Amino acid sequence: MRVYLDNAATTPLDKEVFDAMAPFMLEHYGNPSSIHSHGREVRSAIERARKQVAELINAAPSEVFFTSGGTEADNMAIRCTVDTRGIKHIITSKLEHHAVLHTVEVMEKKQKARVSYVRTDGNGGIDYDDLERLVQEMPGKTLVTLMHGNNEIGNLLDLERAGTICRENDALFHSDTVQTMGHYRHDSEALPVDFLVGSAHKFHGPKGVGFLYINSDIQITPFIHGGAQERNMRGGTENVYGIIGLAKALEIACTQVEEHQKHVSGLKQRMIERMKASVPGIAFNGHSGNVNESLYTVLSLCLPPTEDNDMLLFNLDINQISASAGSACSSGSSIGSHVLQQLDRDHRRGSVRFSFSKYNTEEEIDYVVDRLAELYAVKA
Amino acid sequence: MRVYLDNAATTPLDKEVFDAMAPFMLEHYGNPSSIHSHGREVRSAIERARKQVAELINAAPSEVFFTSGGTEADNMAIRCTVDTRGIKHIITSKLEHHAVLHTVEVMEKKQKARVSYVRTDGNGGIDYDDLERLVQEMPGKTLVTLMHGNNEIGNLLDLERAGTICRENDALFHSDTVQTMGHYRHDSEALPVDFLVGSAHKFHGPKGVGFLYINSDIQITPFIHGGAQERNMRGGTENVYGIIGLAKALEIACTQVEEHQKHVSGLKQRMIERMKASVPGIAFNGHSGNVNESLYTVLSLCLPPTEDNDMLLFNLDINQISASAGSACSSGSSIGSHVLQQLDRDHRRGSVRFSFSKYNTEEEIDYVVDRLAELYAVKA
Repeated sequence: MRVYLDNAATTPLDKEVFDAMAPFMLEHYGNPSSIHSHGREVRSAIERARKQVAELINAAPSEVFFTSGGTEADNMAIRCTVDTRGIKHIITSKLEHHAVLHTVEVMEKKQKARVSYVRTDGNGGIDYDDLERLVQEMPGKTLVTLMHGNNEIGNLLDLERAGTICRENDALFHSDTVQTMGHYRHDSEALPVDFLVGSAHKFHGPKGVGFLYINSDIQITPFIHGGAQERNMRGGTENVYGIIGLAKALEIACTQVEEHQKHVSGLKQRMIERMKASVPGIAFNGHSGNVNESLYTVLSLCLPPTEDNDMLLFNLDINQISASAGSACSSGSSIGSHVLQQLDRDHRRGSVRFSFSKYNTEEEIDYVVDRLAELYAVKA
Repeated sequence: MRVYLDNAATTPLDKEVFDAMAPFMLEHYGNPSSIHSHGREVRSAIERARKQVAELINAAPSEVFFTSGGTEADNMAIRCTVDTRGIKHIITSKLEHHAVLHTVEVMEKKQKARVSYVRTDGNGGIDYDDLERLVQEMPGKTLVTLMHGNNEIGNLLDLERAGTICRENDALFHSDTVQTMGHYRHDSEALPVDFLVGSAHKFHGPKGVGFLYINSDIQITPFIHGGAQERNMRGGTENVYGIIGLAKALEIACTQVEEHQKHVSGLKQRMIERMKASVPGIAFNGHSGNVNESLYTVLSLCLPPTEDNDMLLFNLDINQISASAGSACSSGSSIGSHVLQQLDRDHRRGSVRFSFSKYNTEEEIDYVVDRLAELYAVKA
């Protein structure tokens, strides 16, 4: 049995999404900026996709900008807002994805904005009072950037609460929603958020495409300069099949969200309970042990301290189980997780992240728990 | 008959390329940054693709960086070089693609660098003496950015000559090679060029993916910040199928380059001759009327002055012929071609660009010439 439990890194492409993309690879190959029939048929498909995405997040089509992925969207939101909205101060947390953290660090290094990190508790929970204090105390226009669902430990931000603090204090608010888009409902009109982000491959869409929602009250300049694409907001020929696939994937995800939420939460709850029963001393990082207070797609295990924790991913891999130490984006580097470092935890204990999708089964969960029980029975 | 002669805007995806991409959409879905088996199989495919691209342009794999397309690659080369190499002065031309021109304008507006435009003649030809004078006269470190093949009028730059002027005067040299990559052979080791650019969909590869070649002597910082992808040079989960498709498309293009060059040049020459015979007063913009001195893929027609030139693309479209007024990237906007504006020409004359690919046939060329002859026989 080959088990894929690394869905926070990327998800398998839905066959239905592939089928929606294929005609735009094989038949409708025009450049959407061309005004002839080959171009027009593709242009209208892209604008249909934009309308669809907009409707699914209750936004206007003019608020949706397609990008090459979540990272570009995060870069665009932060850098172009700093450049054009007179931002002097950025507030973020040390638990953000590197797409945000490294971008913010560059803004500070270039002396474009001062950066403050909001206090977090031992479980990585945001201190909302500290956020309010920072927003109020700092002089000059402020941009707050806090992720909705943490990719490593599954902590969820209260978007409403954080956004209200920002609105009341005239700060702009960007939320990296890459882990929640397609997994939770987002109502951009109701939410006090200025920028939202989606990455198609996190919800069974294609890699290499994402989008940035920009509240129509906010005007920023482009990040990538070139042609007049995306209403002059992003130069470059559109990733046509990617955009078609993104819209289809988001449609499927949003239509079936309650159903998937129930199925996937059930798998996560099953794993929590079976792990507790099978591996003595097991714990969970951040809020991920509580299904209702964390991403239902992510479970971050805090393993008993044994000598072989370093070999855990390798041992799982031998057993054909794909999981992650932290985020996929940093697993190529040799540096440990910057998120886990922020938590109060026994550093002799190992960590492993399992992340689930609609395609996972109870049988797979049981298989993985049994293997972990074997590994830790031998070593404990 | 439906005829697509807008291949400088985008080319049909090669079925063989699609077949290379499909398994990475349907089966191998891992995130290349993941260290488990699902990730490793994709990582190795990406690195094979990089090696393949590198070999095809005679570069080292470490000199090839995948991007979301040519525009991002141009932005990255120019902006990150200005930011990190102490560039005080940019030399370019007024005939560049907007991906370069708008990026350079932003650099000037932000007062990061002073911009000079090299003199061009009435046909859009670069004045190499003026280039040399500018490189020598301007104080401070200089970046020269000049495109290899002009997308609108087909003019070809002498890369060797321009690059040598740069090398001899210690200037960095970026060339937007989007229109020539896959259509001509590029030997990055032999060429005195620091940055080359490829966009897969211009050579029968997928949209939404490209690459930047950076000479290993030059170090720049990333354009998109985030994870450790592309050896810390471009954050964001890789567009896996796009990269696989790009490499396959470039392999096919380079393997068959002489064959295609012969076929496509033949089509262009046929169109030139038949147009001269069929439409009195026909002329050609830039150098495009000379097959040996311009892109063999692009023919820019300078039409007799008639009242209905404004309707030409519309009339061609009715006849199921897809062509372009200028570049696709600017046809969405209402502004006329910035390239044609630089040429000495009678502005009452209309212009239309036909651009060819390996899939076009003599029959198609004849059909188009016959329609043009009819249109201009009536109106002349």
